[in-house]
Amino acid sequence: MEKILLAHGSGGRHAHELIKNIILDAFGNTLLEKLDDAAVLFTEPGSPRSPLAFTTDGYVVKPRFFPGGDIGKLAVCGTINDLAVMGAEPRFFSCSFIIEEGFSIDEFKRILISMREILQSTGVQIVTGDTKVVEKGAADGIYIITSGIGTVKMKPAPDISLVRPGDILIVNGDIGDHGVAVLASREGLKFRVPVESDCAPLTDLVRTASDATGGRIHFMRDPTRGGIATVLNEIATAAQVGIALEEENIPVSEGVEGLCELLGLDPLYVANEGKVVFVVPPEVAESLLRAIRNHPLGKNAARIGAVTDAHPGKVVLKTAIGGTRIVDMLTGEQLPRIC
Amino acid sequence: MEKILLAHGSGGRHAHELIKNIILDAFGNTLLEKLDDAAVLFTEPGSPRSPLAFTTDGYVVKPRFFPGGDIGKLAVCGTINDLAVMGAEPRFFSCSFIIEEGFSIDEFKRILISMREILQSTGVQIVTGDTKVVEKGAADGIYIITSGIGTVKMKPAPDISLVRPGDILIVNGDIGDHGVAVLASREGLKFRVPVESDCAPLTDLVRTASDATGGRIHFMRDPTRGGIATVLNEIATAAQVGIALEEENIPVSEGVEGLCELLGLDPLYVANEGKVVFVVPPEVAESLLRAIRNHPLGKNAARIGAVTDAHPGKVVLKTAIGGTRIVDMLTGEQLPRIC
Repeated sequence: MEKILLAHGSGGRHAHELIKNIILDAFGNTLLEKLDDAAVLFTEPGSPRSPLAFTTDGYVVKPRFFPGGDIGKLAVCGTINDLAVMGAEPRFFSCSFIIEEGFSIDEFKRILISMREILQSTGVQIVTGDTKVVEKGAADGIYIITSGIGTVKMKPAPDISLVRPGDILIVNGDIGDHGVAVLASREGLKFRVPVESDCAPLTDLVRTASDATGGRIHFMRDPTRGGIATVLNEIATAAQVGIALEEENIPVSEGVEGLCELLGLDPLYVANEGKVVFVVPPEVAESLLRAIRNHPLGKNAARIGAVTDAHPGKVVLKTAIGGTRIVDMLTGEQLPRIC
Repeated sequence: MEKILLAHGSGGRHAHELIKNIILDAFGNTLLEKLDDAAVLFTEPGSPRSPLAFTTDGYVVKPRFFPGGDIGKLAVCGTINDLAVMGAEPRFFSCSFIIEEGFSIDEFKRILISMREILQSTGVQIVTGDTKVVEKGAADGIYIITSGIGTVKMKPAPDISLVRPGDILIVNGDIGDHGVAVLASREGLKFRVPVESDCAPLTDLVRTASDATGGRIHFMRDPTRGGIATVLNEIATAAQVGIALEEENIPVSEGVEGLCELLGLDPLYVANEGKVVFVVPPEVAESLLRAIRNHPLGKNAARIGAVTDAHPGKVVLKTAIGGTRIVDMLTGEQLPRIC
């Protein structure tokens, strides 16, 4: 490993290697080593105050505007969702812009308005920020980096240590929409059935799920870069459990299925920006499903598999035609600059 | 204003216009509108818990390595200092990398080690992060964005509303070192007297100053982009006071003075990364000066001027030869990509 590859930003195996071998080697501490979507801070046993969750993400999506969203909407939703899956309500955000000289101020305003819409609908405030301008050719238009502080409301907070064999895996709808919408928009592909990014803030959906299960959600993660395959592999590895997926129960829209077939992509590895994988004990699975199917962001929610004690560390897919195959973490870079 | 200019990233007048007319217009809220170096959160009257300070900055400095520092050291020190001037001790940081495909992993490691040194010496932890990789040509090597959470220890916390006529202005040493070191390194300029960046974490110096004054520091700011001229203009405008500077008391090293003369730069506008401007009531000025002159980062500390009720909103310099001139905020872009 001598040079940074696009695959190091994929969220898949190369990204994990870079993080584990190089970044954790330099910065390692017990909070960072959890590699959660957000770090949980100021946890004081017995304190009446909620712990805080803290997260950051950079957004470099190309193109900046795509069906269903844009870089601004993504920069707010993505950071909200990293807090939501930790059981936290988003509160205070920071926002850093890195902008290329010559960038259109009108386009900048459109991006800000798009950010504001999500901020207003979710009650999040941007309280601090920074703007850097680099020369023409030193960035590709605009990059946006948001960090977010949220208050952890779920008690107990979802945690990988709670995952156990028998738990049920639920996703709140069709997978792969974001990745396919961005790719199609970038390459100018036309569809018979149009595909829009699922980019959305998940706080309210997670609140609904938490209420419906009496807070009994063992773990959640939003399957962005690397898709649900990568997230499920992370869960299997971190919890040392097996995961059994049922291909025929995984919801995929007609448009995504069509384009994935055409291009040889596997929707399991395609990014989502409005999806969450829930890991819950079997006795609350039905109430969770029922509740989120009544939520605008959960209409196509489905039970996609279960946690097993067989094949710990591995994700195994039972295919629609009755076979089984191991679903590995994403290797290489399927779709760069998807978020 | 149709396109983003380098001057929009200068920290000076154009940057203020972009922030006020466009960014605050979209995101405005009482915390963001203060335009402090960090936002102070969770301030609960009567609560025994310290409020939190929250800040973010993106680092795009060119070249990445320069005498006295590098982009990694800068990315940690800069965010520490934005917390320090709010009276906060740094606690938890996030770190986002945006890296160009093909970037050397050895260089990446050198940057991480440099970050780690400052983290370890200050007790700060990076607890969450993100890495994005963009194609060759879509960034200039590496950009680092850090956000920081600190606990506000000073009580009362320094605040612009405390600044009043009669207050004394103190800076902890020679100005302009960072900007000149980066510029010289970028342009390959040689000096008779070498200049190193002053890049350093200021928490301990600020603690010393706070102890020496019994916490009676009215306001602090670190004069980075735009130099002390811009910071003093911000204070004059926000507090609606005048500021009278004494040119002969402003410490400037021989190297910085020489290069500034050669290139027609004014050291008042050149960036610093290890300096803080203190605004304190006159009765504690001497104890503050004495204390910080004994600190490794305050050896050349000096009383550079005072807050006046004459000429509110303006900074006036009494020149060494006995004249006076108005020192405006930086206009245009003196030195792009200085941090």
